[in-house]
Amino acid sequence: MENLIFGRNPVIEALKSGRELEKVLLQKGAEGSAKKIEAMTLERGIQLRLCDKSELDRICGGGSHQGVAAFGSSYKYYEIEDLLADAEAAGRQPLLVMLDGIEDPHNLGAILRTADCAGACGIIVPKRRSAGLSEIVAKSSAGAIEYVKTAKVANLAQTIDKLKEQGFWVAACDMDGSNYTATDLTGPLVLVVGGEGSGVSRIVREKCDFIVSIPMEGHVNSLNASNAAAILLYEIHRQRTLKAKK
Amino acid sequence: MENLIFGRNPVIEALKSGRELEKVLLQKGAEGSAKKIEAMTLERGIQLRLCDKSELDRICGGGSHQGVAAFGSSYKYYEIEDLLADAEAAGRQPLLVMLDGIEDPHNLGAILRTADCAGACGIIVPKRRSAGLSEIVAKSSAGAIEYVKTAKVANLAQTIDKLKEQGFWVAACDMDGSNYTATDLTGPLVLVVGGEGSGVSRIVREKCDFIVSIPMEGHVNSLNASNAAAILLYEIHRQRTLKAKK
Repeated sequence: MENLIFGRNPVIEALKSGRELEKVLLQKGAEGSAKKIEAMTLERGIQLRLCDKSELDRICGGGSHQGVAAFGSSYKYYEIEDLLADAEAAGRQPLLVMLDGIEDPHNLGAILRTADCAGACGIIVPKRRSAGLSEIVAKSSAGAIEYVKTAKVANLAQTIDKLKEQGFWVAACDMDGSNYTATDLTGPLVLVVGGEGSGVSRIVREKCDFIVSIPMEGHVNSLNASNAAAILLYEIHRQRTLKAKK
Repeated sequence: MENLIFGRNPVIEALKSGRELEKVLLQKGAEGSAKKIEAMTLERGIQLRLCDKSELDRICGGGSHQGVAAFGSSYKYYEIEDLLADAEAAGRQPLLVMLDGIEDPHNLGAILRTADCAGACGIIVPKRRSAGLSEIVAKSSAGAIEYVKTAKVANLAQTIDKLKEQGFWVAACDMDGSNYTATDLTGPLVLVVGGEGSGVSRIVREKCDFIVSIPMEGHVNSLNASNAAAILLYEIHRQRTLKAKK
């Protein structure tokens, strides 16, 4: 089901965000935060229907719905300009995350979640070779999909050129770069994170201003993509907070 | 299937012996000692799945399964002492990661992977309320499961006491603590990370020397558990590298 949202946190976030919802389904007899969801649904004038667990199981295809589901309109993609407007409104140094080939929806969801937590103002994904904004992404994002805008672009390399013209620095996370903690990441920045298997593509890497690397002390020589993104997003946060204090 | 056990008595014996089991399969509607097996499985915190007779027939290759099968774990658990010996052999400040209720195998796998990359010397999980070392964990760990040892303990709070006696500091990642980048994490350290839904349990939190928090700038107020662990493990790495240079 294309526009299905399920699980308590994702539905609460969808209700809070003001997103258009057609209908909310609640399992009969559900307790706890289900009561809050019921109140929020009625408050917003959205249709509420009580149903059996078996029906929710079927609708959610066996996913962990926690007694709650909602039907919304599809997740919307935005333009780069919308992301930049958000950055300006937030009044902080803009930070965008460009994902070059993240195809695992759990990783995309986790990156959206961490981007929201770390104060990034948007995600850029390519039209091809990328997980789309789906229900799995929404659930993995713990609701952040409602707040962090995603722009889908035809060509990452051309988008980098455009963002450089707007004053952005572009840093890719890859091997053989400078240590990420020793690199100044406090300016307007596009952080490029590569896909699970292949990393950052050659053409994108060549467009970047610099490459930052996370030191590897063990036997495995790469991190899960969302973990790498989290480490970098919070190092950027650390550096910016430190600079703001000076 | 190498680690397959089937038939009621063999499965009961495996459950009694304390052997590591990944999962127990029970035929839907099975009666008699199947109820006992169900209770023992849940009691030991092992995953239970109900399935059809035809599926059990297929899995057991036509063997007489009597409605019951179990998968043993092919991955070995270690003692705390083994983890400490690894730390000593590595010749660096010991760093252990204690997981208080991580039940998602993808998260456990990603944490093993990042622990290897960041130079941690082992993972501690509780006997209950934890994902076990399974194939999904192995795959998510990208092979790190072969290098980073996992100890399974009966009681996290008692283990913390024991590790404090060995000279460890114990830091939990939770809300309302001190900023993680402003906290000295360079000593021998146990980093405690809570489960996906519930965070660090009260009894464990109270045992910790300090609580560190990751600042939250957005709408969602928590990170994916493996992302939080990654941010902290690499902050510890950053601080230790900096100190070593001084």
